[in-house]
Amino acid sequence: MISGLPMAVPEAGLPTHVRIHEVGPRDGLQNEKTVVPVEVKAEFIRRLAAAGLSTVETTSFVHPKWVPQLADAEQLVPMLDGVEARLPVLVPNRRGLERALALGVREIAVFGSVTESFAKANLNRTVDESLEMFAPVVAEAKEAGLRVRGYLSMCFGDPWEGAVPIARTVDVSRRLLGLGCDELSLGDTIGVATPGHVTALLAALGEAGVGAERLAVHFHDTYGQALANTLAALRHGVTTVDASAGGLGGCPYAKSATGNLATEDLVWMLDGLGITTGVDLGRLTATSVWMAGHLGRPSPSRTVRALSHQEP
Amino acid sequence: MISGLPMAVPEAGLPTHVRIHEVGPRDGLQNEKTVVPVEVKAEFIRRLAAAGLSTVETTSFVHPKWVPQLADAEQLVPMLDGVEARLPVLVPNRRGLERALALGVREIAVFGSVTESFAKANLNRTVDESLEMFAPVVAEAKEAGLRVRGYLSMCFGDPWEGAVPIARTVDVSRRLLGLGCDELSLGDTIGVATPGHVTALLAALGEAGVGAERLAVHFHDTYGQALANTLAALRHGVTTVDASAGGLGGCPYAKSATGNLATEDLVWMLDGLGITTGVDLGRLTATSVWMAGHLGRPSPSRTVRALSHQEP
Repeated sequence: MISGLPMAVPEAGLPTHVRIHEVGPRDGLQNEKTVVPVEVKAEFIRRLAAAGLSTVETTSFVHPKWVPQLADAEQLVPMLDGVEARLPVLVPNRRGLERALALGVREIAVFGSVTESFAKANLNRTVDESLEMFAPVVAEAKEAGLRVRGYLSMCFGDPWEGAVPIARTVDVSRRLLGLGCDELSLGDTIGVATPGHVTALLAALGEAGVGAERLAVHFHDTYGQALANTLAALRHGVTTVDASAGGLGGCPYAKSATGNLATEDLVWMLDGLGITTGVDLGRLTATSVWMAGHLGRPSPSRTVRALSHQEP
Repeated sequence: MISGLPMAVPEAGLPTHVRIHEVGPRDGLQNEKTVVPVEVKAEFIRRLAAAGLSTVETTSFVHPKWVPQLADAEQLVPMLDGVEARLPVLVPNRRGLERALALGVREIAVFGSVTESFAKANLNRTVDESLEMFAPVVAEAKEAGLRVRGYLSMCFGDPWEGAVPIARTVDVSRRLLGLGCDELSLGDTIGVATPGHVTALLAALGEAGVGAERLAVHFHDTYGQALANTLAALRHGVTTVDASAGGLGGCPYAKSATGNLATEDLVWMLDGLGITTGVDLGRLTATSVWMAGHLGRPSPSRTVRALSHQEP
């Protein structure tokens, strides 16, 4: 790193602190071809927490057949005892919740879709049916004192349906909150959003009674828009931002790129804006370089590449 | 492209039209290892103009020993007769200007530095000496009726000096305008800027009497910040944005990455914001894919990759 850079110059109207919801171990590794040994995953999560990430989504309690990359959830969670961070896990259904509860998990997330096409493709259900499936999961989790996040995918566009009406995202958001979710993560699953669209959706949610304090944003960098969209969300008062260390899961070389926003690129911007995150960019970058070694390819994060001078 | 995406959702407070100053043929190719044949360059520029780019910086009249990639400037310029676009060229000194004038060039640019370190490295002069060198060039060009752009490099940070005081960028900006430049391009040569810094610099320039209408922004994507910074500049009223088709010159795989903002990533954002540019994103992407074939490597632009499904 060049000493003194980035210069910290705050921008009026932005929050002073942002909580980064790190999704690399779950959303990132789930979308990588390489299956990483459970010991490496545990070490990855420990290093992320040590770099200052206060929330690290660790794994998913889906059926191992669906996501073989995360089939070791039962082994992984007990290995994380003593890690000082919130460690939410994804659960798709009641069976997943029972497995998570048995391991003492304190936070879960359910993964819904705004569009019928993706609900069908991802969950083999209609949007209504998926919400019916989530209802008892969220209720039981809340009863057990857990914190519950609701993911909404395809909020800004859908590969089959194209444009997604803002009103539809608002509707599914309200229904997920109605089930008892504490927080919603608005996902731009295919990375097509632009800043005006972000502002318009957040404004519409606000008018519908869903304030920024209950919202997280989850942008993908498929078209390079993730940080500009994040800036628009910050301006609207959002203070929880999802990102993936090293851009894991977002390999720009592959057709199937999901394009997760890299945590390092986000931290560079927030450091430059004088917005605190608690994250040490140098330690985080070193962690992503270490993880890239295990995956056998360089990180797609521009900041990781610039700071580590990685060659292809 | 997925039909209907990106959704065009304007954002309050942004301009309705942006002029893109395309720098791929000059700034891009100058920083590529491959030397491209002059016929390919001419065809590249014709295709860029046909894709709707109204300004295409074509080449540089530096000494061929300094930049062998652009040693064919004398051959290239006459090949562009009939291209319907503004076609500025870079000139470093009076000799360069004379060569450009002899070919009937109508617009030039000079390339200054805000920092002493880069002035020394790039021009082997102090900042004062470089401005003295530019003075007769700009005067003669204006006398000949040419339009003159002044580039300022290292406006937001310098690899040797680290942080660059805003006051210094303001000072060099005023001096370049004082020489007679019509427009300034504020360069983040190493890509370290963040949005608050952009806003603060533009505000300081405004207080010093340099309005947004005389300014262009030239961001590099080295740390992934270029589009977020562009958004901040648009909010401040800037309507001229530099970008490089396909991200030419900004290969993210090389240590020497300059990281030019890819024109396609910019157009995606502007299309999504409902800001007109006159550029056809499909034709532009096809042009960058064609050019990538001549360079023998895929485009580093995320939008080009997403739209063309390029494999590594």
